[in-house]
Parts: sequence; C-alpha cells; structure tokens
Amino acid sequence: MTYCIAISLDKGLVLTSDSRTNAGIDQVSTYSKMFRFNTKADRCIAILSAGNLATTQCVIEQLNRDLRESNETSLNTTHYLSDTADYVGDVLSQRIKRYTEDQQSGFSPDATLLMAGQIKGQPPQAFLIYPQGNHITTSVDTPYLQIGESKYGKPVLDRFLTMQTSLTDAATCALISMDSTMKSNVSVGPPIEVLVYETDKLMFKHHYRFDAEDPFLINLRREWGNKLNQAFKEMPRIPESFSTDSTTGE
Amino acid sequence: MTYCIAISLDKGLVLTSDSRTNAGIDQVSTYSKMFRFNTKADRCIAILSAGNLATTQCVIEQLNRDLRESNETSLNTTHYLSDTADYVGDVLSQRIKRYTEDQQSGFSPDATLLMAGQIKGQPPQAFLIYPQGNHITTSVDTPYLQIGESKYGKPVLDRFLTMQTSLTDAATCALISMDSTMKSNVSVGPPIEVLVYETDKLMFKHHYRFDAEDPFLINLRREWGNKLNQAFKEMPRIPESFSTDSTTGE
Repeated sequence: MTYCIAISLDKGLVLTSDSRTNAGIDQVSTYSKMFRFNTKADRCIAILSAGNLATTQCVIEQLNRDLRESNETSLNTTHYLSDTADYVGDVLSQRIKRYTEDQQSGFSPDATLLMAGQIKGQPPQAFLIYPQGNHITTSVDTPYLQIGESKYGKPVLDRFLTMQTSLTDAATCALISMDSTMKSNVSVGPPIEVLVYETDKLMFKHHYRFDAEDPFLINLRREWGNKLNQAFKEMPRIPESFSTDSTTGE
Repeated sequence: MTYCIAISLDKGLVLTSDSRTNAGIDQVSTYSKMFRFNTKADRCIAILSAGNLATTQCVIEQLNRDLRESNETSLNTTHYLSDTADYVGDVLSQRIKRYTEDQQSGFSPDATLLMAGQIKGQPPQAFLIYPQGNHITTSVDTPYLQIGESKYGKPVLDRFLTMQTSLTDAATCALISMDSTMKSNVSVGPPIEVLVYETDKLMFKHHYRFDAEDPFLINLRREWGNKLNQAFKEMPRIPESFSTDSTTGE
C-alpha cells in the first residue's frame, strides 16, 4: 500500500508521501510517489499517487508528455486548479478503463491521486482525484486529504490541524501521522518525502527526503514515543468504584 | 460500524466495546455489543460482536438457548476455550450461510466476534472468530484482537500494550484507543463498555459502562487531548537546512 497526505492551509500547502510499493508480500520495492512538474512560471503543481504502479507511472508520463509537446490540454493550459484536476482525472480514468476491460480476478488497475498547487491569481488548493476521474477538495473544517492507508494516521491530523496551523507545524504533524501509520502497517515505509509550498510563491519552498536511518526521523519517532508514554503514565485510571455490580449474564 | 477490543495479558483480560449500530446513515441506534453468559462456575466467558445485528442477535440467542436447554454442545460442555471458539464459530457461520444464499446486491449477513474468558485449569484466552467460523488468538507480541473499525485506534494499542501491562493500564489504553476511533469515525459511539477479568478468578472483576456525558470519559478525552497537544508543541521541527535544493521537476 501507500500513505500520502495533502494539507491545505492559509499559509500554503504541505505534501507528504511514503515510498513503499508492493505487489504481493514478496514484491516489495521503493518508488517515490511524489511528482513535481516543469510548468510555466505562473503555476506550481505536485501530485502524490497511491494504487497500481503501472497506472500511476503511465499517468505521470502522460502529464509530462503533454507538457513537453505543448499539447492542447496540459498542466500549463488550465486557468483554474479544478480544471487541472478534471484534466488529470481524465488521464487517470482513461488509463484505468483500458485495463479494466481485460480484468482478471483479483487484478485492479485502480489508482488514486492527490494533486496540489497554485495558479497565479487563484488560491492554493489540494484535490483528491478518484479512479473514476472525479475529485474532492479540502474545507475549512477538514484542511487535509489522504490516500492509501489513511486510517491509522487520521486521529493525529484531526487533533492538530486547523486552517491557521503553520507550515512547519503541519509538516511535523504529517510526519507524526506517517510514523503512526508505519508503526501499525508494514506496507507503508520510508523514504518519507515532504514538500512545502508557501502561498503565492509559485515555487516549492522545501523538499525533504528522510531515509529509514535518517537521524531526524529516528529522533522524531523516539521523542513522540517517549512523550506519548509519559502522557499515558499520567492519564487518570478508571476508579474501581465505577464498576457496576452485575458480573454474570444479563 | 463498531469497534471492539479484546486484550489478553498475563494478569487477565480486558474487553471494550462501543454501542453504535447503523444500517445506513439514517438508521443509527444504540445496542450493547458485549455479552456475558450464565455458565457453570468452572468457566467465565464473554463475547463482543461486530457486523450484521440480525446475525449477532441470533447467535447470542442460540448460545443462551443451548445453555438453558443443556444441549449436547454449549458454552458449558467444552474442555478447552479453543473448542468453545469452534462451537461459537459453527453457530455463527451456519447462521450467516442461511442468508447468504438469498443474497441481494449490497446485503451482507456477515458478522465477526471476539470471544474471551477462561476455563478452570486452562489459561485465560481471547479469540477472534471470523464469519467462516475459523478463529485466531493473541500472541506474546500481539496481546490484543480488534473487530470493526480497527485501524484508527491500533497505533495506541501497538504503542502501550505488552503482556506485562496491568489490567488497569490496559483498560485506560483501550479507552484511549476507543476515543481516537470516535474522534475520526462517526460510526463508532458511546456508551462504551469495559469488562475486566483477573486470571483464575472465574468471574468478571469489573464491568464499566460510560455514557457520552460520563464525566470520567469526558475528562479522559480532555486530558489525553491536552497532553497530546502539549507533546506536539514540544516536538522538534524539521530544520530548513535539511531541504534539498531542487524545487522544480525531477
């Protein structure tokens, strides 16, 4: 599997992805799932991918080809980021349809994408693009989108993220969410990539890549573990007096 | 959905369940998913249920009827708890098969159970019983089992539980795991029930039931939230100097 997060805040965007892919237990590999594009200077776009690797590689290749060949529709030609999401959704769903017809039992060409960025004059935005090509964006109440193994790391995002969170805090929150997921699910693994975009800059501010042995990541994990253990120790325990009397069948 | 946990430790068992059931968004109700049985004094057994409510109600009714009517096989007649799990698995899978044949699109009679307890002379054990009737138990490395919406609350269990954890600590851990799940998933909700069993006592030690407005549960949630927020504030942030230089297409 995979775990990717796109966070869309007042101050900008924070994208995070793991790099583990697997086709069955014995075909585990490392592929980056974070893609940036060489667009015109009036826009800045990145995509995170989850799902069938053959599908996502073809989609990214098609998006790059449309850019290089200055095709009628490409990441450069849209005026609104939601139109860009439509275009990427079309490329994605067409590629998936091509293989769904020959579908063998158990095989799925499905993939899901997170697309985020900004076009000059518009606010920065993030979109979750489904295999069918349709998409959703974030809201003030839910300033993030996830794809892949999203459940393990969701409580942390729900707890710490608001529209006013700083980009640095959001990056830390995303790394903790990623760490919780890696702790509970072996199909999500390093290197972990983080991409930070500051509103109206039209270029990415920071790109980080953390290997499994990265001292910062190891320290973050240890620190978070220690703090949670300490917090757990200090939590109130259920008073025995709260127990109901009935101890047999009800 | 549902969220239930069975924790099996050196010192005994801790069972936790929520009480929200839903058949579609507009049929949300409250049903206890924790069942204790009026067995012989040489054993103590409880079951937690997830899945189709019609199925689980019939299964519990059948188990109680077999006990009342002193049938050839019942919760009273088995010598090992794994045989009890076989028997409960048979009752479950037969009930599910009965409705699977008439299966309408989208309908599933499937249910999954957690069974835990002790028979005199044997160690206490917990089993996860699948709709097919087969089952798994815990291990030294994974001293817990979950059914229902299990992913949100898994990181907390992975972090704090070992075989040596005290029953009181395990109950607190289970409540925090339940709270994380409720925070991220509306289909899991109070009342929350907790059942504590101490090894070799052959009767349940404590049964707790927390409503949504229970001051202890509200305080636990607030305390955990505060401590996590404090921990998050104190976490190291990614130094900007770690950023790779490339900010365009790769």
